[in-house]
Amino acid sequence: MTTPSNAQRDPRDLPDVGSLVVGVLGGTGEQGRGLAYRLAVAGQKVIIGSRSADRAESAAAELGAGVRGTDNATCAAESDVVIVAVPWDGHKELLVSLREQLAGKIVVDCVNPMGFDKQGAYSLPVEEGSAAQQAAAVLPEARVTAAFHHVSAVLLLDPNVESLDTDIMVLGDERAATDVVQALAGRIPGMRGVFAGRLRNAGQVEALTANLISVNRRYKAHAGVRITDV
Amino acid sequence: MTTPSNAQRDPRDLPDVGSLVVGVLGGTGEQGRGLAYRLAVAGQKVIIGSRSADRAESAAAELGAGVRGTDNATCAAESDVVIVAVPWDGHKELLVSLREQLAGKIVVDCVNPMGFDKQGAYSLPVEEGSAAQQAAAVLPEARVTAAFHHVSAVLLLDPNVESLDTDIMVLGDERAATDVVQALAGRIPGMRGVFAGRLRNAGQVEALTANLISVNRRYKAHAGVRITDV
Repeated sequence: MTTPSNAQRDPRDLPDVGSLVVGVLGGTGEQGRGLAYRLAVAGQKVIIGSRSADRAESAAAELGAGVRGTDNATCAAESDVVIVAVPWDGHKELLVSLREQLAGKIVVDCVNPMGFDKQGAYSLPVEEGSAAQQAAAVLPEARVTAAFHHVSAVLLLDPNVESLDTDIMVLGDERAATDVVQALAGRIPGMRGVFAGRLRNAGQVEALTANLISVNRRYKAHAGVRITDV
Repeated sequence: MTTPSNAQRDPRDLPDVGSLVVGVLGGTGEQGRGLAYRLAVAGQKVIIGSRSADRAESAAAELGAGVRGTDNATCAAESDVVIVAVPWDGHKELLVSLREQLAGKIVVDCVNPMGFDKQGAYSLPVEEGSAAQQAAAVLPEARVTAAFHHVSAVLLLDPNVESLDTDIMVLGDERAATDVVQALAGRIPGMRGVFAGRLRNAGQVEALTANLISVNRRYKAHAGVRITDV
């Protein structure tokens, strides 16, 4: 028996991720709580992390669905896949402090480096090219991917919204890692994980959030993105 | 009677653009010919421009649908809306040379500054932030917008493809100009023009083309983008 090469494999043939524990760093923020809630409801074991274990525990109790809360380091250590949903300000410092716990883990960066002024949102320049590339630079032993940039925290957290009408662009340099993240995204009703390139092309995906904020303002919407012909 | 302010206006209420003449600079390239063909079939008067009037005339004759061909300067002078579909290499020089002809015109930049290597496509850094911002910088009297970055030339040029399943993100700082470009996009079956922010947020929309090239490679697709909840 031979294993098919990556190029030969069906890109829709994704691994079973049901048994993986998902950690969410910054799990008490809007985006973090929203993702934790949806993944837990989909059946995933979810741990949210925060600087304060107490706050994480309270947030987890409020979310229900079996979500646990603890400090960021324990969250990272006990999870198989770790979503980074912290504010851009402090992103690098937190990841540097968790380098040991995140070694070998699949890290999913969903941070959008953005500024706001009276004309709306705009993307901030990042020395490494993107938040995800910064994560990869400071976490050389982790398997860094980028995803979940554009999903509306409002919709994620609204229990009346049954299905999230959006694709999740998943980026990364290691096929096995992006496959897992695509599969995770696909567990949330309405969502689909679509491979969208290597980490060096993550900056524009992060920055596109500023455009979706403009869309939301103009159309009074919670805009998402679908990739067509896929 | 009072005129509603921009903020009060329905963003789906777009002007009638049927009588506008559309020029396409770089109209003998794949993207330029594709857009010219679709807009002409939709009923728009279209002029394609090229450095060589002869080549433009030949390309126009091949496209049919009433498309005319001429040199770039005449194309710019005789059009109401001018799509810039030239290669990134030479973009600035061409626009500088047409400053006079483009004064007061709606300019639609659809150029994607990109490089390619064995790992695929990647976005090139642009001093002004984006091709569209470069256009605005060298054309201070023009009404510069950005749009049509992601549409597949292959699909545009295939007469068997009746409908293009994609939204067109339209960017610009002047509402009246972006409204016209959205309306133009909406004339092509399947397409919809969606306002997606100011010119300062054009860079990531241009760069997203690199991601769609990754999608196309992985899924053997001609990927487009839809904005959901709009």
